[in-house]
Amino acid sequence: MKKIILTGDRPTGRLHVGHYVGSLRERVRLQDSGEFDDIYIMIADAQALTDNAEHPEKVRQNIMQVALDYLAVGLDPEKSVLFIQSTVPELTELTFYYMNLVTVSRVQRNPTVKAEIKQRGFEASIPMGFFCYPVSQAADITAFHATTVPAGEDQEPMIEQCREIVRKFNAVYGKTLTEPEIVLPQNQASMRLPGLDGKEKMSKSLGNCIYLSDEPDDIKKKVMSMYTDPNHLRVQDPGQVAGNPVFTYLDAFSEPGDFEAFWPDYANLDEVKAHYQKGGLGDVKVKRFLNSVLQERLRPIRERRKAWEQRLPDVRDILKVNCEKAEQVAAKTLDEVRHAMRIDYFAD
Amino acid sequence: MKKIILTGDRPTGRLHVGHYVGSLRERVRLQDSGEFDDIYIMIADAQALTDNAEHPEKVRQNIMQVALDYLAVGLDPEKSVLFIQSTVPELTELTFYYMNLVTVSRVQRNPTVKAEIKQRGFEASIPMGFFCYPVSQAADITAFHATTVPAGEDQEPMIEQCREIVRKFNAVYGKTLTEPEIVLPQNQASMRLPGLDGKEKMSKSLGNCIYLSDEPDDIKKKVMSMYTDPNHLRVQDPGQVAGNPVFTYLDAFSEPGDFEAFWPDYANLDEVKAHYQKGGLGDVKVKRFLNSVLQERLRPIRERRKAWEQRLPDVRDILKVNCEKAEQVAAKTLDEVRHAMRIDYFAD
Repeated sequence: MKKIILTGDRPTGRLHVGHYVGSLRERVRLQDSGEFDDIYIMIADAQALTDNAEHPEKVRQNIMQVALDYLAVGLDPEKSVLFIQSTVPELTELTFYYMNLVTVSRVQRNPTVKAEIKQRGFEASIPMGFFCYPVSQAADITAFHATTVPAGEDQEPMIEQCREIVRKFNAVYGKTLTEPEIVLPQNQASMRLPGLDGKEKMSKSLGNCIYLSDEPDDIKKKVMSMYTDPNHLRVQDPGQVAGNPVFTYLDAFSEPGDFEAFWPDYANLDEVKAHYQKGGLGDVKVKRFLNSVLQERLRPIRERRKAWEQRLPDVRDILKVNCEKAEQVAAKTLDEVRHAMRIDYFAD
Repeated sequence: MKKIILTGDRPTGRLHVGHYVGSLRERVRLQDSGEFDDIYIMIADAQALTDNAEHPEKVRQNIMQVALDYLAVGLDPEKSVLFIQSTVPELTELTFYYMNLVTVSRVQRNPTVKAEIKQRGFEASIPMGFFCYPVSQAADITAFHATTVPAGEDQEPMIEQCREIVRKFNAVYGKTLTEPEIVLPQNQASMRLPGLDGKEKMSKSLGNCIYLSDEPDDIKKKVMSMYTDPNHLRVQDPGQVAGNPVFTYLDAFSEPGDFEAFWPDYANLDEVKAHYQKGGLGDVKVKRFLNSVLQERLRPIRERRKAWEQRLPDVRDILKVNCEKAEQVAAKTLDEVRHAMRIDYFAD
């Protein structure tokens, strides 16, 4: 069986370092591993519209920002199909038919849907489209016969619901669709990077993110203002590492070579942590090191991004060709689905 | 503004006299009135699948039965576009985007949805697809910029929900869609013909229908076994007309000329009713008259149906061409919708 990846992002803003360590970095690794036959990376504009219906302009503008971020981190349109969800209308047709195989109460019990409804303050006024998004996501995944969905652990209930839909479809209409597996980030710190302010999640509205497109000065300013251990008042006090975002960022970003290059006083991160916990190591020093690490990691990304920004018509052409590729694959799956459902009346 | 009709039927069985007086007869009249620029008659297979997902074969087989019934009653594929819903994928795409403009609780409050959920015994296990059907119906109507939807009064809340979606879409994205009006059957008796057993609704499972394809002997047998006034035990007893299905059928089917032709003892239906109410007129006589009337009305329909049954490949070709016509129109509307939503990224 072919190994196929489907994953993506909602284009509601530029991507930040949380996206990078949580998914983009892993995607590039998987892309370059040569282990996968096909890779589809979706800019989920139609999904973004389910709770941004009144702001289509915001979604439209962020499609190009997300595409630039993709190219910047090293996603390669020759190896990964980078496409825009709404340009593949077959996905809505699959959603429509899968909706017959899922009950309203099953979606209501989906923990991810519950959490997201709460997070968005929807409760009594959930748009139907938003409510249906597990089904729509199942359409996205199965349209490409994806076997592998790299995603955060908060997405596990969504993938489970997709697997249920696949099993139900295959049981009712005969073996047609492929059951996907989720692949979680390997690095524990990468599973969910906290905001600069220590809040659980990075979000544009909280202003607590470092973007992949941020300039060096902005990165430095943001790092130096990061929340640390609030009880670590004097340098000589013992400091807390657990729950301290500066150390979580170091867990996610630092590499062995960084110590020799930027902080030869320490051989590795464990030594830094031990010193911080014992007392005698100030936040400013640790932040300076984190800044050096981040600058090193983000510089090549930012530079590639700037180069692509000079070639926007080329980016548009790349997307167009990739959208056509994605549509051809989804159209083939839809043919299989219609055939299985016996609604291919004029197929012959 | 153009006057455009959209209406249709779910292909879950052959059509019966309830469909005929409730909608088909009126459709043919509207078609032949010359008052409408375009008429679209949809065989709603995708909608039928929302609560028949596990029986696609039943839906598939009934598409041809419904098409034959359409041609039999006088719907003319040169004047009315007779098409199959699922062959117009643009409808699912419109549904998908309209779902963002409707809340889950608004659909839950739709009286038609409430009634149909109860009727089907769904309650806790409503399929998402069935639940979304008001939105899907709004897509069907607006895809053709329909101004006029001939339908039964039970459909009024659905049309109202469609109008709300149109107003919301136009308010958010700019004037794009057309608000439809419902047109109810003119004849009161035609609004809902009861079953042969006096039950409120005709249904295949209750076995209380006369089908448009029924043979003369079957029609006669069914009429002679109809439920009447249960207290009209002896001929000389006064009989009840209200709620007596034999008279409801006569209200719906008899024409002035029928009395001279089949029952010259009476000048019109009012005289028959008066005699029945006074006492002295037996059920058998009234049923014989109803049988003559129904035979006269259904004979030409059955004969046309038999003629078309000899030409199934032609019926298939007619449907295919009509489906293509419908898709072209829906594709144009979808282009307008995508343009209004600003998701026509590669349109130039």
